[in-house]
Amino acid sequence: MRPTLRSTAALAAAAALLGCPAEPGQRVSTGLGAKADQIAYDRGLTPDDVAAALKTYMPSGRIDDHIMFASSGHAGQVLVIGLPSMRLLRTIAVFTPEPWQGWGVGGKESMEVLAHGSAGGKHLTWGDTHHPSLSETNGVYDGEFLFIGDKANARVAVIDLRDFETKQIVKNPLATSDHGGAFVTPNTEWVVEGGQYAAPLGVGTYAPIEEYDQRYRGYVTFWKFDRKKGRIDVERSFGMELPPYWQDLADAGKGESDGLIFMNSFNVERATGGVESGNPPFEAGASQRDMDYLHIIDLKKAAEVVQRRGVKINGFTTIPLQASIEEGLLHFAPEPKSPHGVDVTPGGEYAIVSGKLDPHVTIYSTKKIREAIARGTSNKDPYGVPVLDFDAVVEAQVELGLGPLHTQFDDKGYAYTSLFLDTAVARWTLGGEYAKKHGQAPWSLVTKTPVQYNIGHLAAVEGDSASPGGGWLVAMNKWSIDRFFTTGPLLPQNFQLLDISEPGETMPVLYDMPIGVGEPHYAQIIRADKLKPWEVYPEVGWNPMTGQRDPNATEKGKERIVRRDDGVVEIWSTVVRSHFTPEHVKVRQGDRVIWHLTSLERARDATHGFCIGGYNINLSLEPGEYASIEFVADQPGVFQFYCTEFCSALHLEMVGYLLVEPTTDAGK
Amino acid sequence: MRPTLRSTAALAAAAALLGCPAEPGQRVSTGLGAKADQIAYDRGLTPDDVAAALKTYMPSGRIDDHIMFASSGHAGQVLVIGLPSMRLLRTIAVFTPEPWQGWGVGGKESMEVLAHGSAGGKHLTWGDTHHPSLSETNGVYDGEFLFIGDKANARVAVIDLRDFETKQIVKNPLATSDHGGAFVTPNTEWVVEGGQYAAPLGVGTYAPIEEYDQRYRGYVTFWKFDRKKGRIDVERSFGMELPPYWQDLADAGKGESDGLIFMNSFNVERATGGVESGNPPFEAGASQRDMDYLHIIDLKKAAEVVQRRGVKINGFTTIPLQASIEEGLLHFAPEPKSPHGVDVTPGGEYAIVSGKLDPHVTIYSTKKIREAIARGTSNKDPYGVPVLDFDAVVEAQVELGLGPLHTQFDDKGYAYTSLFLDTAVARWTLGGEYAKKHGQAPWSLVTKTPVQYNIGHLAAVEGDSASPGGGWLVAMNKWSIDRFFTTGPLLPQNFQLLDISEPGETMPVLYDMPIGVGEPHYAQIIRADKLKPWEVYPEVGWNPMTGQRDPNATEKGKERIVRRDDGVVEIWSTVVRSHFTPEHVKVRQGDRVIWHLTSLERARDATHGFCIGGYNINLSLEPGEYASIEFVADQPGVFQFYCTEFCSALHLEMVGYLLVEPTTDAGK
Repeated sequence: MRPTLRSTAALAAAAALLGCPAEPGQRVSTGLGAKADQIAYDRGLTPDDVAAALKTYMPSGRIDDHIMFASSGHAGQVLVIGLPSMRLLRTIAVFTPEPWQGWGVGGKESMEVLAHGSAGGKHLTWGDTHHPSLSETNGVYDGEFLFIGDKANARVAVIDLRDFETKQIVKNPLATSDHGGAFVTPNTEWVVEGGQYAAPLGVGTYAPIEEYDQRYRGYVTFWKFDRKKGRIDVERSFGMELPPYWQDLADAGKGESDGLIFMNSFNVERATGGVESGNPPFEAGASQRDMDYLHIIDLKKAAEVVQRRGVKINGFTTIPLQASIEEGLLHFAPEPKSPHGVDVTPGGEYAIVSGKLDPHVTIYSTKKIREAIARGTSNKDPYGVPVLDFDAVVEAQVELGLGPLHTQFDDKGYAYTSLFLDTAVARWTLGGEYAKKHGQAPWSLVTKTPVQYNIGHLAAVEGDSASPGGGWLVAMNKWSIDRFFTTGPLLPQNFQLLDISEPGETMPVLYDMPIGVGEPHYAQIIRADKLKPWEVYPEVGWNPMTGQRDPNATEKGKERIVRRDDGVVEIWSTVVRSHFTPEHVKVRQGDRVIWHLTSLERARDATHGFCIGGYNINLSLEPGEYASIEFVADQPGVFQFYCTEFCSALHLEMVGYLLVEPTTDAGK
Repeated sequence: MRPTLRSTAALAAAAALLGCPAEPGQRVSTGLGAKADQIAYDRGLTPDDVAAALKTYMPSGRIDDHIMFASSGHAGQVLVIGLPSMRLLRTIAVFTPEPWQGWGVGGKESMEVLAHGSAGGKHLTWGDTHHPSLSETNGVYDGEFLFIGDKANARVAVIDLRDFETKQIVKNPLATSDHGGAFVTPNTEWVVEGGQYAAPLGVGTYAPIEEYDQRYRGYVTFWKFDRKKGRIDVERSFGMELPPYWQDLADAGKGESDGLIFMNSFNVERATGGVESGNPPFEAGASQRDMDYLHIIDLKKAAEVVQRRGVKINGFTTIPLQASIEEGLLHFAPEPKSPHGVDVTPGGEYAIVSGKLDPHVTIYSTKKIREAIARGTSNKDPYGVPVLDFDAVVEAQVELGLGPLHTQFDDKGYAYTSLFLDTAVARWTLGGEYAKKHGQAPWSLVTKTPVQYNIGHLAAVEGDSASPGGGWLVAMNKWSIDRFFTTGPLLPQNFQLLDISEPGETMPVLYDMPIGVGEPHYAQIIRADKLKPWEVYPEVGWNPMTGQRDPNATEKGKERIVRRDDGVVEIWSTVVRSHFTPEHVKVRQGDRVIWHLTSLERARDATHGFCIGGYNINLSLEPGEYASIEFVADQPGVFQFYCTEFCSALHLEMVGYLLVEPTTDAGK
């Protein structure tokens, strides 16, 4: 039974009777004590509940000091969450059109970004975002950019953290499936995207499943990031052909392991499924062996080799497997068993592998790996990839429990690993210099905190960087079951905030946050003061895609409508509280309409929407923003365009009429 | 400066020194007091902050006891929020495709609902949701259905609260613009949708703006709801032609006013804008007069008259304005000034109008209105609609402040009105029987609580029903400015939770909730125990759209692939942790694929996703759900289909291959 607070109020009153030197502050406090204790008593809160409430509560206007960027899984977006309050501050539209943000609903600029990410002529209107990755300088988050991958279509997006907008989506020409992405190298020269389900390389390439061993392949892609332009440079990016295992999560080396890339794999059994034909289903066929292969890739060397030995697959420069072997770009090390996460320690000394069907985490030594590679090995996988000796490269194994998935780090020499089947977070000590520095027994389990329920990834403050912050950890639980009100058969996920500020065995859950807008997989938490977002756009007429004032931006008084000879009507509008100029736009059915809109606002939060009823168009014009639309006025009639954002007391009057006059030669 | 809690810990310690009869409970409490006080002190929390934190905090597993359904504005969805924790439990996809819910991303069932709501052949992929309306029985929320309107396209959606899914979207044939919807009559026989921006009636009808007075019209539509079927019956629904004023919010009478519909209007000036031609912009032109017209509609009588005098406009039965006048279905009463909300008191005795450019709320008496209508009037508007005398129908006016928008009620005889320009919530007393019952001075302002910033609508517990619950009120603020971390130029809204449980002048803000997933306009709050959601679907193979087991639902062992002579490949699959059956699906390029999927799961929260990489398809299969997809396999190659929901430790192995063999006669 839970201890409650029945008697504190009485005690506080008794304390007042002490008649000790009474300052106003004391009387206020005593009164408060009684009042607060009464509320806690009435609500049946335990002492731990009260502590948790006071640690996470943010009074009105108090700004969260940590920001979490979480994927939203098959919602296709990014979630921005404040810590410690665990409040969803906003979403960032990425792969899925989102009308509130004016993303992909008629706006020319955003629709071009989405179109660029379309595959084989197919227009894609969603993605399966998995792993966000903040840009780094010397292995430390710098708060400038965010990258995220789309597992369902093998794409990577670039988000600019000045305006929290997606600027670029690149489609991988090699495959339709990825998982090991996005992960950046310590100075963000490269964005890593690793494959998942093997297939013939080159989107659109067919081969019978019976030829799996010969013609199906895995891959990894290294996207070259141009920080100055804030875009991925596809021409300078390249892929590597890998054996047809199923590559999984990856991490970039840093410090001692700088230049190396670590990537997990599973299904080295090369099971091809076919349960309908009496074969074992993938879940069984892909889980027969005790060991899979940790991929160790020399990216530094690969970036040179690709100049000599790169070939084009579906137009994309790729290093053939044989070349990688001959040039020593690729080594394997055995890893237990169907692993998920591989996570490099802050200093880069170790890579920690969580084998989801093995109760241990396995710690690989960078130093030992480099030595083993130098010594060479005669062991090879069926494709000729050299396989290092397990004992030669493993530093330690720590038994944590059932279903270890993913590991993060803090500032106290601890590692934290999610245990899916145990539904717990394990805290354990690192060895080597970490143990020495913090005077802890190396490589040992310290404590486990149960979470509700079945944790996937976890995220600690800058917990995958070279400078983990400690303090907070978020358990990203896949099942919530009974934690929240039942919202029908589809339930939210459950993000639980853990307080990891105290060393040792104390690691309480403070807060449950339902995630009912998607299914996040991974997240990163950054100190809020590292982010330097714009409050308004730098200039009136700012085009967020070009990063400058648009040539078609319009000044007050220069609004105009021009009918061109070629049946195009071009409109230059301004937008300001509380009217559009012009308010009447008359066209003929079949005209092509090009419409430029410029927000004249300079006040923070003075956002206007712009929609055209019936025409499936909606924009969000943030202060100073320029945007444009192009459409054919194929529907005759009278249509309102109005501000979809409640901007002022006269917001409902912020409207105009689009008059589309029917013509006999409609649609010309 | 804020008083903090420096001395409480010391006092609690001193209290312990009292050596009073010590029970374990007391010692725990004392220790707790000190610990909690220390946290509050360290974080600089005021006594009010601590009280607010303890009132709103929900320990893990504690279920919110009130549920708020909020629109999401131009995000096009519904938000489900728990009170008092102010946590977003989930969104409900309505007008905008949402892949996490499998809504409108390849799923046949949901795409048919969205297609049904398309306008004039235009496929719409968003909406501007404004006013959710819970189904009622005798004027009280019954928790069965939720209705919501789309202002941008004049549509209404029906949501079933057993599975929180949208079941129907109806497009209004009369117009592309609405605002006064959705509002239900006390037994949900009718769903009211009122117009907004006047236009020629009938989507696609054109008339020059110069003929505004003659050919532009307002309207209201009454959608007939068939509760047994859980659908709107379009055939039994009808519209009414109204003068070309801009109709705004509406409310259905109840109790004394049962059978009447009240609807606001603005721009009775009939301003047509044209600022670009030197005319006053709408914001000025539509705000010249001191009085607009409160529309009083006799729905009960209209439902009879329509049988005799209804005409078809764009195929939709509509009562012409002249018929409404002749049959006495429509009366006006003057109302100040550019009003927004009209809200009927719990007993139906009064309709309260908030004129956003007038500092008063104006209270109309139902009794006086009925008497005035019986007496008749010689005053008419320019279209011949009888105009009742202001003084004959107004009971009282209460001066509240600047920018009153919308009013709700509680269980203590209070009304609450949002003040946009004052950025405050006003509490004031009702008169008549309410004042007598609660012993309060009638029609008088009690207090105002400032909110941050610029409140639009507000929502109190069941605060627009016949049985308001009191306790909580949410201020739906349009601007947040400095309340949260700056997430770029696009900032969230701010929902603030107010504690209205104490009578009199105490009405504190307890919590700020950022809304960064849309721009909600209105919300309703229902007692959670009134909702009876399903935890899983009633039977395996349940089709959420037909409400029964689907004929194509598949049992374990009966999975199959059938190639028909007409180039159609039909697949019956089962879905269960952790595999799909079949795992191999081989088709020829150009084949039409019809794919039936049945979830065999019966465990709560055991949801599976189903996506096909590169094919822009994603489903969410909740426990027991049947869903289907149809597509042409126009892209050759090897594509993975996999579970997009992290369902088990072997979730990554829950995958299969779609093999599309290239053919020379592709796309046949």
